[in-house]
Amino acid sequence: MGTKDLLMNIISETCDTNIDKVTVVGTGDVGMACVFSILAQGVSSDVAMVDLNENKMMGELMDLEHGRLFLNAKISAGKGNDYSVTAGSKVCVITAGVRQKEGESRLDLVQRNTDVLKAIVPNLVKYSPDTILIVVSNPADILTYVTWKLSGLPKHRVLGSGTNLDSSRFRLFISQRLGVAPESVHGWILGEHGDSSVAVWSGVNVGGVRLKELNPAIGTDNDPENWKSIHKQVVDAAYEVIKLKGFTNWAIGLSVASITKSILRNSNKILPVSTYIKGMCGIEHEVFLSMPCTLGRNGITSVIDPHLAEEERCYMKFSAAKMVETASGIKF
Amino acid sequence: MGTKDLLMNIISETCDTNIDKVTVVGTGDVGMACVFSILAQGVSSDVAMVDLNENKMMGELMDLEHGRLFLNAKISAGKGNDYSVTAGSKVCVITAGVRQKEGESRLDLVQRNTDVLKAIVPNLVKYSPDTILIVVSNPADILTYVTWKLSGLPKHRVLGSGTNLDSSRFRLFISQRLGVAPESVHGWILGEHGDSSVAVWSGVNVGGVRLKELNPAIGTDNDPENWKSIHKQVVDAAYEVIKLKGFTNWAIGLSVASITKSILRNSNKILPVSTYIKGMCGIEHEVFLSMPCTLGRNGITSVIDPHLAEEERCYMKFSAAKMVETASGIKF
Amino acid sequence: MGTKDLLMNIISETCDTNIDKVTVVGTGDVGMACVFSILAQGVSSDVAMVDLNENKMMGELMDLEHGRLFLNAKISAGKGNDYSVTAGSKVCVITAGVRQKEGESRLDLVQRNTDVLKAIVPNLVKYSPDTILIVVSNPADILTYVTWKLSGLPKHRVLGSGTNLDSSRFRLFISQRLGVAPESVHGWILGEHGDSSVAVWSGVNVGGVRLKELNPAIGTDNDPENWKSIHKQVVDAAYEVIKLKGFTNWAIGLSVASITKSILRNSNKILPVSTYIKGMCGIEHEVFLSMPCTLGRNGITSVIDPHLAEEERCYMKFSAAKMVETASGIKF
Amino acid sequence: MGTKDLLMNIISETCDTNIDKVTVVGTGDVGMACVFSILAQGVSSDVAMVDLNENKMMGELMDLEHGRLFLNAKISAGKGNDYSVTAGSKVCVITAGVRQKEGESRLDLVQRNTDVLKAIVPNLVKYSPDTILIVVSNPADILTYVTWKLSGLPKHRVLGSGTNLDSSRFRLFISQRLGVAPESVHGWILGEHGDSSVAVWSGVNVGGVRLKELNPAIGTDNDPENWKSIHKQVVDAAYEVIKLKGFTNWAIGLSVASITKSILRNSNKILPVSTYIKGMCGIEHEVFLSMPCTLGRNGITSVIDPHLAEEERCYMKFSAAKMVETASGIKF
Repeated sequence: MGTKDLLMNIISETCDTNIDKVTVVGTGDVGMACVFSILAQGVSSDVAMVDLNENKMMGELMDLEHGRLFLNAKISAGKGNDYSVTAGSKVCVITAGVRQKEGESRLDLVQRNTDVLKAIVPNLVKYSPDTILIVVSNPADILTYVTWKLSGLPKHRVLGSGTNLDSSRFRLFISQRLGVAPESVHGWILGEHGDSSVAVWSGVNVGGVRLKELNPAIGTDNDPENWKSIHKQVVDAAYEVIKLKGFTNWAIGLSVASITKSILRNSNKILPVSTYIKGMCGIEHEVFLSMPCTLGRNGITSVIDPHLAEEERCYMKFSAAKMVETASGIKF
Repeated sequence: MGTKDLLMNIISETCDTNIDKVTVVGTGDVGMACVFSILAQGVSSDVAMVDLNENKMMGELMDLEHGRLFLNAKISAGKGNDYSVTAGSKVCVITAGVRQKEGESRLDLVQRNTDVLKAIVPNLVKYSPDTILIVVSNPADILTYVTWKLSGLPKHRVLGSGTNLDSSRFRLFISQRLGVAPESVHGWILGEHGDSSVAVWSGVNVGGVRLKELNPAIGTDNDPENWKSIHKQVVDAAYEVIKLKGFTNWAIGLSVASITKSILRNSNKILPVSTYIKGMCGIEHEVFLSMPCTLGRNGITSVIDPHLAEEERCYMKFSAAKMVETASGIKF
Repeated sequence: MGTKDLLMNIISETCDTNIDKVTVVGTGDVGMACVFSILAQGVSSDVAMVDLNENKMMGELMDLEHGRLFLNAKISAGKGNDYSVTAGSKVCVITAGVRQKEGESRLDLVQRNTDVLKAIVPNLVKYSPDTILIVVSNPADILTYVTWKLSGLPKHRVLGSGTNLDSSRFRLFISQRLGVAPESVHGWILGEHGDSSVAVWSGVNVGGVRLKELNPAIGTDNDPENWKSIHKQVVDAAYEVIKLKGFTNWAIGLSVASITKSILRNSNKILPVSTYIKGMCGIEHEVFLSMPCTLGRNGITSVIDPHLAEEERCYMKFSAAKMVETASGIKF
Repeated sequence: MGTKDLLMNIISETCDTNIDKVTVVGTGDVGMACVFSILAQGVSSDVAMVDLNENKMMGELMDLEHGRLFLNAKISAGKGNDYSVTAGSKVCVITAGVRQKEGESRLDLVQRNTDVLKAIVPNLVKYSPDTILIVVSNPADILTYVTWKLSGLPKHRVLGSGTNLDSSRFRLFISQRLGVAPESVHGWILGEHGDSSVAVWSGVNVGGVRLKELNPAIGTDNDPENWKSIHKQVVDAAYEVIKLKGFTNWAIGLSVASITKSILRNSNKILPVSTYIKGMCGIEHEVFLSMPCTLGRNGITSVIDPHLAEEERCYMKFSAAKMVETASGIKF
């Protein structure tokens, strides 16, 4: 009899899949920051990784496993793009994708990433038919649309990490001016993730007080305190970080972990994520843009109507139109 | 249109049952300490309570709900002993039971508690057929056996909180003598929860060093340092607390939360819990006693053979025999 | 050589006081819920308890210590009202106090509790001169004032748990109507803790949207949806719980833990707590009422001006006047 | 009056330094994994970073700050190697250092890193005279010695992360063979961090059972089950990861976070870290090697004597001798 047989009697089979299993596709800087945030913050006790770059992925798997004593979680990875390792995931996070080449058109980039997603999305749905999909790859909103199309899932089960991160930055920059915690500043960046996002200044409030009531010009060009510059700071934030360190990872990882937690805990917390908004804010096409959404185990259970001002609705429609145009050119 | 309709568009149904749902039966001091430990330590995000004392239970429900902002969890309670509220629980904790009357025989007490359990266990299994049952009610080991019989579940899915608490006390008292954290003292109290438990002195180790190697007389009557008194302290601990404050609750609540966590996270951590031990340590009857067990989502996946010394095996057999005798008198 | 000497070499003295030490005075239901919430939620790693009822306190101490393995914290208690055990506390929570006798006037009750506080507050300040004091005892606001007077501390270092709990209930009841998480509902109950508190309906917002914009009558008698009844539900909440279970403990314990955490982590989070408000909202006397306050390691660093409507300011002034009248009768 | 002045009244100064402040020197892969583990696991609420590469450091600072909403912590960085930002740190982690050049002798490498440390250590001690120093830079044990010499601090306040990570790997690999949680496997890798570490097979135990009792040949060349290969796996682990992904970061980050937590919480947990061991295990020189140490707010409060077998002591002495030789050549 071997040591193990002398030590213990097996009574039942070990269960392979935890109730809070999460898959992350892509083990680049962003993917790994998602994985590590989810593990270190105790969001899930079971994370599977998939990546075409098998060496990188296996290196990451081993490194994380060496820290399992400090994480109390299961970690796995599918050798050679094997999606069976993802079976039974409650949430799948997609960070894989190619980057824009110099001179490449937006449509060409979207098409190349659509081709990447074709190899991923059906596999995820095959092994986890009840999963919720979170799209992180860029350009975020349109790839969320593409993922939805490729998945065949109902629209409440596919969402993009969208402006959850932009809103976190918005709340930080306001909080720094006021000397309070970011948690105590409430404010929303909605619409398109990136340059044409919308800062909803009318909704910014602190301690129950709307800043617009104290400063009616807030967010406009006429504001002598120039709070509007904070929106520019938000839009420029990623570029700044990339210029300094070459990439962004920590904040997007934490943002994805917060979305994942809201879903796994069935919390009904409201977060700004990219969702199907046809019929809202005057938008008549099938597009995905960020709105405040209630998140639970079924994915998105409701979308808050942000009651935007006319000008803000214009931005939304403009983003939507741009997206529809790009989307119409995609070959599925 | 009402305020809610103006505020939000419903996209999908809210999910009623979280993936980590736990039921606690009994909202007395012990039951509530279990509920609160599980919630406050983030072990589960969804706890249902059941109690025949509807007023007490609804008061506890309201009090907990008033603190939901600080807990981020769902809490529910079944009015009038309605077990439908427990549906879909991954773990059910049973703390209900009657206390020994003066002059009452052990068998009479067990019989009265068996009658209590008859009204509980089939209901739990009906609404959560895949659940794991944790029995906390006293006398612990025999009521775990009774619960197993009443449940019709395989033996790895019914366990008693057993000596997990006794072992915690054992590790505390040793740690206090040495000036180190209880977490860094490894030691096991096994067998019967209560007066005839077994302290496995041969296994006590700190920093990889067996204390028995430093002090071969440890745990015996010949030890000039009288470490054995620590076992007595463990056995007397609950009586001491009851004498001082009237009941025990915090430590048992925390102990149950730790068992529940190991199951829900599918951790395969080894904890001393009451399990079916026929065929182990020379025991030939269907009894439940505490052994080091690997706990996961399937309940008990393996039992460690503690390789007891002859004298320790005797204690075990004695406890087992006593239990068999009582068990044979129970009317199911 | 004894076992310990063979096991280990002492290199330096163990430090007796942790950096995040908290004292809780009073080990009744409320005090113990504070202690247990602080420990179970990992708010502090070192909690000292003081109570005149030595048996109860020692029983609680032992019970908590038996669960130390699951808490990873230090717990202590001062035998016979010995305050030296509290030395070096960063935060002291006062839950001690007597209850209203039948027919007793408010002033008589306040005077009896003032006498209780005389035996407590100077001792706390003596052993922890840099501490922050949190007053939980009722009537809350006036006893916060009394504690401040007795302490000799600057006003930013004495605060009452005030309407932090009322606001938690307010957010819960609104969240239940909307089907979202309490965390995602922002709303404030200010002023006096208890019957004459003020619900600031103008500040209630969800997902960046003010409910008052959707329903201008919200919070008034003219609202067909009768949201105002939620404020009544808040005011009645404690009475309801007491009627059902005899006392309240969990929610107040969690509320105090959240205040304590904001201070210990130096978070600058904004919470509604009872503070010195002379000069605000048109109040000209030295009274304590709840306002949204920024909390950090120095206690209260700033007070948000809630920009109350005229009617709300009236309530505040009325509460303040009542308090001044009672205060003027107190014999220090 | 500006928006801020209309919003809030400042009552007291915000406190700049949290009670649990930690500094991490070096923002490379290892440094950032330390920072992020400490923040994401809630070990500290205040982390300062220092690095000579200002761009990299500021990029990391901004990226982390963008995620502050999800971290609830303060993060800072010293522009241009400014150590004033580290003032008041309870723990300082040193990850800075140069890597071995091809053909470089061990002594030359140590000398170059000594020169690096000369610019760091006195600055840390200047701004945080009461701090505990944790050395992560390689070669670990000798640089811990160098740091101690440079710091002028008592020996219990300087330690190396040492074999805490090696032991984590050891426990993982054993746990994988047995199908239990790494937390439930107790085993220690001691001595030198790296190739000549010592696996203390005699102390390996699971559920209170020593594996050596079940398999007396365990860890030797005569063991048919070849458990010894696990030690080789431990030694090779970092090389394997580096071969696959180019560097290691997650596991060392988590390991350092666990050491930091034990110190900040004053836990008295026993972890294997590099400490001054003159007078232990027959070693007569001033060297640092990993031993099981009790960690608290004062740093190392005691060292466990691992009661090594003769062969294991030989390894220790050999490592010590090698280190003394190198140390004698260092120019301080």
